[in-house]
Amino acid sequence: MQDALIALTKYWTDRGCMIAQPFNTEVGAGTMNPATILRVLGPEPWRVAYVEPSVRPDDARYGENPNRLQTHTQFQVILKPDPGNPQEIYLASLEALGIDIHAHDIRFVEDNWASPALGAWGLGWEVWLDGMEITQFTYFQQAGGVSLDPVSVEITYGIERILMALQGVTHFKDIAYAPGVSYGEVFGQSEYEMSRYYLDDADVDANRALFETYAAEAERMLAQRLPVPAYTYVLKCSHVFNVLDARGAISTTERAQAFARMRGLAREVSALWIARREELGHPLGTGAANGPAEPLLPEMPDVSTVPADGTSSLLFEIGTEEMPPHEVSQTVEAVRAAVTEKLAATRLGHGRIEVFGTPRRVVVTVGDVEAREPDAQRTVKGPRVSAAYDDAGQPTKALLGFARGQGVEVEDLGVADFGGNEHVAVTVTDLGRTAPELLSGLLADVVTGLRSEKNMRWCDPSLSFTRPIRWLTALLGDSQVHVRVSSLTSGRTTRVHRTADEPVVQVASAGGYPEFLAAHGIVVDAARRRQEIVDAAQALAGRVGGQVDIDGEAALIDEITNLVEQPNALLGSFDSRYLELPEQILTTVMRKHQRYLPVRTSDGALLPNFVAVANGACDEAVVRAGNEAVLRARYEDAAFFWRADLGVTPEDFRAKLTQLTFEERIGSMADRADRIAAVASDLAVDVALDESGAATLARAAALAKFDLASQMVVELSSLAGVMAREYASRAGESPDVAQALFDMELPRHTSDSLPDTVPGALLALADRFDLLMAMFSLGAKPTGSSDPFGLRRAALGVVRILRAKPELSAVTVDSGLRSAAERLRAQGVSVADDAVDSAREFVVARFAQQLRDEGVPVGFVDAVLPGASAPGTAAGELAVLRQRSEDSKFRELVTALQRIARIVPAGTAAGFDPARLKEPAEARLAESVQALGDWSDGSVGAFADAGGAIVDPVNVFFDEILVMAEDPDVRASRLGLLATILARSPSSIDWSALDTALGQ
Amino acid sequence: MQDALIALTKYWTDRGCMIAQPFNTEVGAGTMNPATILRVLGPEPWRVAYVEPSVRPDDARYGENPNRLQTHTQFQVILKPDPGNPQEIYLASLEALGIDIHAHDIRFVEDNWASPALGAWGLGWEVWLDGMEITQFTYFQQAGGVSLDPVSVEITYGIERILMALQGVTHFKDIAYAPGVSYGEVFGQSEYEMSRYYLDDADVDANRALFETYAAEAERMLAQRLPVPAYTYVLKCSHVFNVLDARGAISTTERAQAFARMRGLAREVSALWIARREELGHPLGTGAANGPAEPLLPEMPDVSTVPADGTSSLLFEIGTEEMPPHEVSQTVEAVRAAVTEKLAATRLGHGRIEVFGTPRRVVVTVGDVEAREPDAQRTVKGPRVSAAYDDAGQPTKALLGFARGQGVEVEDLGVADFGGNEHVAVTVTDLGRTAPELLSGLLADVVTGLRSEKNMRWCDPSLSFTRPIRWLTALLGDSQVHVRVSSLTSGRTTRVHRTADEPVVQVASAGGYPEFLAAHGIVVDAARRRQEIVDAAQALAGRVGGQVDIDGEAALIDEITNLVEQPNALLGSFDSRYLELPEQILTTVMRKHQRYLPVRTSDGALLPNFVAVANGACDEAVVRAGNEAVLRARYEDAAFFWRADLGVTPEDFRAKLTQLTFEERIGSMADRADRIAAVASDLAVDVALDESGAATLARAAALAKFDLASQMVVELSSLAGVMAREYASRAGESPDVAQALFDMELPRHTSDSLPDTVPGALLALADRFDLLMAMFSLGAKPTGSSDPFGLRRAALGVVRILRAKPELSAVTVDSGLRSAAERLRAQGVSVADDAVDSAREFVVARFAQQLRDEGVPVGFVDAVLPGASAPGTAAGELAVLRQRSEDSKFRELVTALQRIARIVPAGTAAGFDPARLKEPAEARLAESVQALGDWSDGSVGAFADAGGAIVDPVNVFFDEILVMAEDPDVRASRLGLLATILARSPSSIDWSALDTALGQ
Repeated sequence: MQDALIALTKYWTDRGCMIAQPFNTEVGAGTMNPATILRVLGPEPWRVAYVEPSVRPDDARYGENPNRLQTHTQFQVILKPDPGNPQEIYLASLEALGIDIHAHDIRFVEDNWASPALGAWGLGWEVWLDGMEITQFTYFQQAGGVSLDPVSVEITYGIERILMALQGVTHFKDIAYAPGVSYGEVFGQSEYEMSRYYLDDADVDANRALFETYAAEAERMLAQRLPVPAYTYVLKCSHVFNVLDARGAISTTERAQAFARMRGLAREVSALWIARREELGHPLGTGAANGPAEPLLPEMPDVSTVPADGTSSLLFEIGTEEMPPHEVSQTVEAVRAAVTEKLAATRLGHGRIEVFGTPRRVVVTVGDVEAREPDAQRTVKGPRVSAAYDDAGQPTKALLGFARGQGVEVEDLGVADFGGNEHVAVTVTDLGRTAPELLSGLLADVVTGLRSEKNMRWCDPSLSFTRPIRWLTALLGDSQVHVRVSSLTSGRTTRVHRTADEPVVQVASAGGYPEFLAAHGIVVDAARRRQEIVDAAQALAGRVGGQVDIDGEAALIDEITNLVEQPNALLGSFDSRYLELPEQILTTVMRKHQRYLPVRTSDGALLPNFVAVANGACDEAVVRAGNEAVLRARYEDAAFFWRADLGVTPEDFRAKLTQLTFEERIGSMADRADRIAAVASDLAVDVALDESGAATLARAAALAKFDLASQMVVELSSLAGVMAREYASRAGESPDVAQALFDMELPRHTSDSLPDTVPGALLALADRFDLLMAMFSLGAKPTGSSDPFGLRRAALGVVRILRAKPELSAVTVDSGLRSAAERLRAQGVSVADDAVDSAREFVVARFAQQLRDEGVPVGFVDAVLPGASAPGTAAGELAVLRQRSEDSKFRELVTALQRIARIVPAGTAAGFDPARLKEPAEARLAESVQALGDWSDGSVGAFADAGGAIVDPVNVFFDEILVMAEDPDVRASRLGLLATILARSPSSIDWSALDTALGQ
Repeated sequence: MQDALIALTKYWTDRGCMIAQPFNTEVGAGTMNPATILRVLGPEPWRVAYVEPSVRPDDARYGENPNRLQTHTQFQVILKPDPGNPQEIYLASLEALGIDIHAHDIRFVEDNWASPALGAWGLGWEVWLDGMEITQFTYFQQAGGVSLDPVSVEITYGIERILMALQGVTHFKDIAYAPGVSYGEVFGQSEYEMSRYYLDDADVDANRALFETYAAEAERMLAQRLPVPAYTYVLKCSHVFNVLDARGAISTTERAQAFARMRGLAREVSALWIARREELGHPLGTGAANGPAEPLLPEMPDVSTVPADGTSSLLFEIGTEEMPPHEVSQTVEAVRAAVTEKLAATRLGHGRIEVFGTPRRVVVTVGDVEAREPDAQRTVKGPRVSAAYDDAGQPTKALLGFARGQGVEVEDLGVADFGGNEHVAVTVTDLGRTAPELLSGLLADVVTGLRSEKNMRWCDPSLSFTRPIRWLTALLGDSQVHVRVSSLTSGRTTRVHRTADEPVVQVASAGGYPEFLAAHGIVVDAARRRQEIVDAAQALAGRVGGQVDIDGEAALIDEITNLVEQPNALLGSFDSRYLELPEQILTTVMRKHQRYLPVRTSDGALLPNFVAVANGACDEAVVRAGNEAVLRARYEDAAFFWRADLGVTPEDFRAKLTQLTFEERIGSMADRADRIAAVASDLAVDVALDESGAATLARAAALAKFDLASQMVVELSSLAGVMAREYASRAGESPDVAQALFDMELPRHTSDSLPDTVPGALLALADRFDLLMAMFSLGAKPTGSSDPFGLRRAALGVVRILRAKPELSAVTVDSGLRSAAERLRAQGVSVADDAVDSAREFVVARFAQQLRDEGVPVGFVDAVLPGASAPGTAAGELAVLRQRSEDSKFRELVTALQRIARIVPAGTAAGFDPARLKEPAEARLAESVQALGDWSDGSVGAFADAGGAIVDPVNVFFDEILVMAEDPDVRASRLGLLATILARSPSSIDWSALDTALGQ
C-alpha cells in the first residue's frame, strides 16, 4: 500500500504538483483540507497532491465489515486551473499504479458532488474500475458559496479500494500494507476502538459542548479576520457533528441547523480568505498554473477550403468528456433541433440531417450539402413615391438618402407595391455564401447554444455545458470546415477509446462516419447500441437458463446505453447464498449502484447472475472478476446488516427508537411512533374496519417505524418499510401486519405506489399528519426550494391516499391534523390553533397544485377548494362539475347562483319571512326555494338535478324586483331570500370561482 | 523541500520502514503520534517513518522570525528494536538527502529527552550539522511510565533547518518548497494567522473548557478499555494546554496539575495499550524486527591464542556511541581504577597502565604484560591435628574427608600452625593462567561493571551504560584476546571517523595504538586534545587580533575536548552589528548553545568572532559558513526580541505583569511584584539605608520583575534580571536601580553570586520570602525529588544572602516570612499561622543542611539552630562556638550547663529567692549567678568570657547539694536557681546539642 502512495506521489510531483501533508485535525475527506477547499478559491494557480486519512464516523464497523472503515485513505490531487486534459493525465496515473488500463474496464460515471456544510459543489464522475468506484473526479464549481474562477480539477483516489482490487483481497484487513505487514495488523485495533468511540461510547453532551465551543471560536476568528484558524474550527465542528451523527444524536432539525451554521461559517471563511489573499497580493501569482498544461493535441492548421461544386456530406462532431446518460439523449435532440432550424434559416440546399450521440460525442451528419447557397433577389422598400419626389419632380432628401444607402443611382430605382402603397424600391441580389463559410458560423452557434440541466465551467474562458467540450471535428466531404468557438478550433481528428493504441485518429472524409467510428469500436447510434445490449444480455442470460426482463429494465437499459460507446456485455455471477437476502435489496444494489441487469428464471425468480456492460474491448476474465468482487462486497455489506438485524426482534427495534432523536423539541422517534399509532386509531373510528383489520392496525401501530432502528435501514434508508415487512414476517408477524408496516411508508416519492391495505393507509396518513403537524407547530414551514423535512412530499402523500381510497372518505385533512395536534399536545408540545389552519392550507394548496398539474382549469380547481379537506370527495365532485358544466341547464343554474352571490353582501344571514315577500316574483322564488330543500351538505350532482327548478324564478326575480329597496325591512327580506339559496347549495363548492372555468 | 521528504521516505522504506501518516489531531512532535509513542511499547517489532507537521504554539512568531515556526515539519523514524548500527544508517540517510557528509562537520551532541506529559524519556543526541541541530536521535527508554523492552531508536529530522542549511537561505520563508514555489508563499499566511490565534486571540475560557472536556473523554475511554481514542484525547489535552501556555494563561501550579493529569492519563493509556496488544496476541509478532538489521561487521573468528613467552603490550578498547562529555572523563577514571584493581588481584606481571578516552572510545593500554601468571603455592588448612587421628592413631573421618577433598593421599599430608593451633595441612600449587585466559574474563568484567550517572539500554540483552557500547578491541601484542560480554565479542578491528573512506580498520598490534589512531585522525589522549584546542584557538584568535580567555573558558574547553576525537578548530565571525546586544546574551548563546569560544580584545571587549571546534577533517569553508549561519540565526532571534523589547518602557512591561498568571489562587505576576515591593519595604525598616539607598529601593521595587514581560526573558528565562538591568539602564533608570533589579534575581543557582547592593538584597529576600510563603500557604511543599517551584533554591538563597550581608543582620527569616504572610493576607489570600512555622522550619532545615555540607559537625549545627532565623548571626556564633570549644574552660562551662539542663525539668520557671538558699554552696552559686547578669540575648563569646565564673560554683553546688530535696519549697528554689542559669545563657544556643560535638 505504501508503494502505491509513493508511486502516486512521484507521478504527480513529476507533473508539477506540490506535496502537502494530511491535515492535523480530523477531516472527512481530502477535499476539506485547506490545501483544497481554500486554495481552489481566487485566481492563484495551485497544483497539489497529498494523502488524507479520512475520518467517517458513520462508516465505523468495528473493523468487521470488509469494505467499511472509520478512517480510509484518500489520495487527493488538485489541478488549478484545469489543464485541459485531466482525464488523460489521470488515466496515466493508474498505469503508474500498475493498473493495466487496456485489460480493465475503466469508466467515468456521472457523479455530482456537493458538500452542504462547505457550501461547495462540482460536477464530475465516479471513476469505475470494473464496476468499482476507485476515484472521484470533480470539476469544482463553487466553494464556500463562491463561484470558482478558474475552475479546479479534483481527483480523489480511494486507496484501500484500489488496493483491494489490485491485490485481489476481499477484506481491507488483508491488504498488504508494507512488506510482511498487513493493513489489519497495523490498523485493526484502531478500527475497532475508534468504532467503539463513534458508535457507542462518545459522550453526547461533551461533543455537543465541543461543537458550540468550536463554532464560537470560528466566529471569533472571523471577527478577527483570520480565516485560517477560523477554518480549522469549522473542520472541528464538522467532525464532532459527524461523531454526534454516528452516535444517533442528531435530529432532523438539529442537522439542518448545524449545516446552516457550518455553511454560514464556511462562506464567511471563503470570502475572508479571498479578501486576505488579495490583500497579500496573491503570493502565488494570478497567471498560468505552476507548470504549463501539456497540450493534448498540436495546433491545427486552418485549412477550411472552398469546395468545388456539387454536393458533399457534412460531418460535425462535438467531443466531450463523459456526459451524464440522460444528457446524451437530450443533447442529441437539442442539437438536432438547432441544426435543423439554423439550416432552415439559410438557403443552403442539403439532404437528411442525422444526429447521434454517445457519452463522449454528439455527431451531426447532413447529406447532400450543396457547395453554396444560391444567390437571392430581394426587393428593398424605399420612401413612398409621394415622398420621394418634391413638387418639382426632383428627388427628395429621403430618396437620395435611400439610394445612397443601397448603393445605387436614383436612376436605377424602381417602384413597387407594399401593402397597397407605392414605394420607391430597388431589387438587391444577396450573394449565396459558400457552404464552409456559412457552416462555420452556424456550427459555432450550435456549440455556443448548448445547455444542459446543470451546467459547469472548465478551462474554457466562456463555454458552459454539462461536461467539458474538448474537441470539434468538422468536415465537408473531405475538406475541413473551420469552426472556432471560444478556445476550441475544429479539426479533422477525432478521439476514440482512450485506451486505444492510437487514441486520436484522423478522419479522411465526412462520408460514412458512423462506419468509420464503428471500425474504431464506437457504436455512435444509440438505437443500435441499445439493441446490441439487449441482444447480448439475453444471450448471456440464456447461458444460465435465465433471461433479462427487457421491458421491466427499460430505463436501466437506456441508461447503460448512454454509459458506453461500445457495449461489451458480460455475464457475472454471485454466491447464491446471497439469494437469502430480500430480492429488493439485491436488485436495488444491482440497478442503482452498479447498473447491472438482473437475471431471472422464466418464473421471475432471481438467479445468482447479472449482466454488466463494459465499454469497449478489455480482458473479460479480469473485468468479470472485478465486477463480481464489487457486487460481493456490496452484498457482503448488506448481508452483514441483514444477519445482525435478524438477531433483533421488531419489539426490540421498536424499543430502540427511544434512542433515535426525531427532533429535540418534538421528542424521540419512539414518541413519534406512539403518536402515529394514536392518530391512526383516531382516524380508524370513522372507518369501517372489520375485526381482523382492527387487530392488524393495532399490531402494526404498535410496531410502527421499528425498522428505522435496524442497521439495514440506517444504512440504506430507501429500504424503510421494505425491511419492516421483511423483518416482521420473519419474526412471525402476520402477513397483514407485515404489509401494513410496508404500506405505511407509501408513497415514498411522486411516482411510488400507494398503500394496499386500509390499516396500512391509515398508518401512512397518521405518519404524514404527525409529521406535518409537528413541523408546523415548530413553525418549520417549507420555504422556496428548502423543504428539509419533506413536508411537500408528505402533504401530497396524504392527498394521493385520500383520493385513491374511497374507504377512507370519512377521513379529512382537517380531522387528521386535529388528531395529530391533540396527540402532540398530549406529549407536552405546544401547538397553536393557527398551526392547524396553516397546515391544512398547506395540504390543500398541494391538492390544488396537483389538480392543476393534472390539467384541471384553474376555475374548477378553485371551485372545489372549500371541500378540499376531503380530497377524494372533492375530486369526485370536481368530475361531476366538469361533466355538468357541458350542460346548459347547469350553466344557467351556476350563472344564477353567481348573480346572487354578487349582490348578497358577505355575512348576510340566510332566512326570510315569506309574509314580507309580497311581490309575485318574490313569492314565486320563495316558494321554489322552499321546494328546493337544503343541499348544503349535498353533492353537486343531486343539487344540479334539484336546483334547475330555481333558475327561472331567480331570473324573473332579478328582472322584476329591486333587491336593494329603500325600505330596510324589505331589502333585508329580499337579501335573506337570496342568501338562503346560497346557503342551501353545496357548501363544498365555490360557485363564483367557476366564472373562469365556464368562460363567464 | 518535498524532494527531501520523498528522498527520506524512499530511503527508509528501502530499509524496511513502514510509512505512516501525520496524525490527524495537532501534535507537538512526531513522537506524540501513536505510531511512535504507543508502538514503542510492548514486544512487537516496529519500523516506521513519517512526516509530522509539529505544532508548537509557543514558537509562533507571526512568520517574522527567520527560524521559528508555529508549525514545523519533522520527519520521524522509529526502529524497534535498535538494529545495532542506527547511527551509521542515519548518516547514510543524510547522504540520501544530498548532504556531503565528508565536507560537513557532523556531530552527535548529548541531548537527553524527556516528556513529562507523556511519562517518557530517552537518552541520545542532537545531531549537529556544522553547529546546527538537524536531528534528534534518541534511544527511547520509557514511555507512559513503562520501561521499554526492546528499546526503540527514534530519529527526528528537523526538515526546515536541514533545508535552510542545504539551500543556503536565512529565512524559512525563502526555502524552495516545490519547483517555483517558496515556503513562505505556501505557508506564510498560515504562520501569521495561527500565530495570531496562539499568541493573541485564542479564547482562554474556551480552551480551558476544551481541556476539561478532552480529559474527561480520555478518562471515560480508559474506563471502557479503549486506549486508542483515549490517547487521541490526551493529545488534544496536550495541544490546548500548549495553546493556553502560549497565551500566557498557565500558572505554575496549573502547569504542575495539568502535567500530572496528562502524565497520569498517558500512563494509563500505555498500560492499557500493552494489555490490549497482549490480548490481541501481538498481531505484529514478538520476534525479530520487520526486516533483519543489517549487520555492521562480519562475525569475527575466535582467534584468541596463547602467547609465546616474553612480555607484550595489551590494548583494550571499549567502543561506544558518543558519550556525554563529562561521562568521558569519569569513565576513563572508572576504567583505570577497575583495570588497576583487577590486575592487582592477579599475579600477572605487567607494566604501566594507561587509560585514554574520546567520546567514542575508552582505550586501555598496559605495557609489558607477561605471558602468564607464575604458579603459586598455597597451604590448605585441614582439621586440627587433635581431631585428625583417633585414639588409635588412625585417621578420623574428618581427616579422610579432607584428604579426599584435596585429592591427596593421607600420607602426603603435612602439619602447619594456624593461629597457634596445629592443623593438618597440604600445600597446593595454583597453576598460573595464561595472560589471554586471565584477561579475557578480567576485561569482560570491566565492561560489565561500567556505569554512568544516567544509564540506558539498547539492543544488547543485558548491558546498561550512558550510551550503547558497540565494539570491543582486545589485542595482546599482535594476537587477539577473546573477550565476550553479553552480545559483544572482541575483535581486532576498530572504528575511526564514520566519514573516513574506511570507517572500520584492522589493528595489527597492541603496541603504539595511540599513534595508530593518530594516523587515522584520532587524538585519543584528552590532555593532548585539549592542548591542541587551546593552541589552535589562540592562534586563530590572534589572526583577528584577539585572544581566547583560556582560564575563564576552562569548563567549556573541557567540554569541547570531549566532544571531538580530532579537534579541528576554525575561526568564524558574525556581523558586528550584533555587538549592540548585551554581551551576556552573545556569550550565553556561544557557550551554552553552540560550544563556541568567544574571542576578545586584550581589554576583554568582545570581538565579532568565535572559535568553533569541528571533529576531524572537513571542508572548512563549508563548515565555517554553516556555523556562522547558525550563530546568525540565533543572534537574529535574540536581536528580534531585543529590538521589540526596546520599544517598551519598564513601566509598560511592569503593567503587563497583570496579564501573566503567577498562580491562579495567588494572583498575577503583578500581584506578586506588589507584594515583593511591600515586603522589601517592611524589611528595610530594620536596616540602615541612607536616603539614596531608600530611593533606589523604592524605585527598583516599583519596577520589580518587569523584565518577565519582555520577549527576551519569555524566550530565555535565564536572562531574568540581566535584561532588567539592561532595559532599565537604557530606559534612563539610575545605575543603582538597574543594579538592584539585577541583584534581586540573585542567586539564581547554587554557585551563583549574591546581590551586590543592599536594596537589591532586600528585594531578593522579599522575592524569596513571598515565593515561600505563597506556596506554603497553598500547602505546596516540596516532596522528595519534586520541587516544581524551586522552593529549596529560594530558601537557600535567603540563607546565603543573610549569611553574606552583615548589614542585614536585623532581618530574620521569621520577620521576612511574617511580612510576606501579612502581604498575602492583604491581597485576600488565606495564610494559616502554621504555614509560617512550616516555612520557617523549611528554611532552617536548608540552613542546617548547608552547614553540614560545609563539614560542620552535626552537634555544632544543632547547637545554633535556635538562632537560625538569623543565619548570619547564627553562623557567626557557630564560628565562635567552634573556636571556643578548643578551650577547656569553655568546655567546662558547657559541661556545667548541660549538667544543669539534664536535671532541670522542662518548663521550670527561672528565678529564685536568695533567702531560701541557705547552704553555702547554694548561696555561692546564687551570688555568682547574680553576678553573671543576663546573657539571654548575648553572644556566645561574651557569655563564654563571663560565664567562666560560674563553672566552679556550679560544680561545688552539684557536689554538695541534693537538688531534689524532699521539701518541695527547697527543691523549687534549687531548681529555680539552676533554671535561672539556663535562662541567662544565650537563647540562640542549644547547649545540649553540643554533647556530640564536644565528644561528651
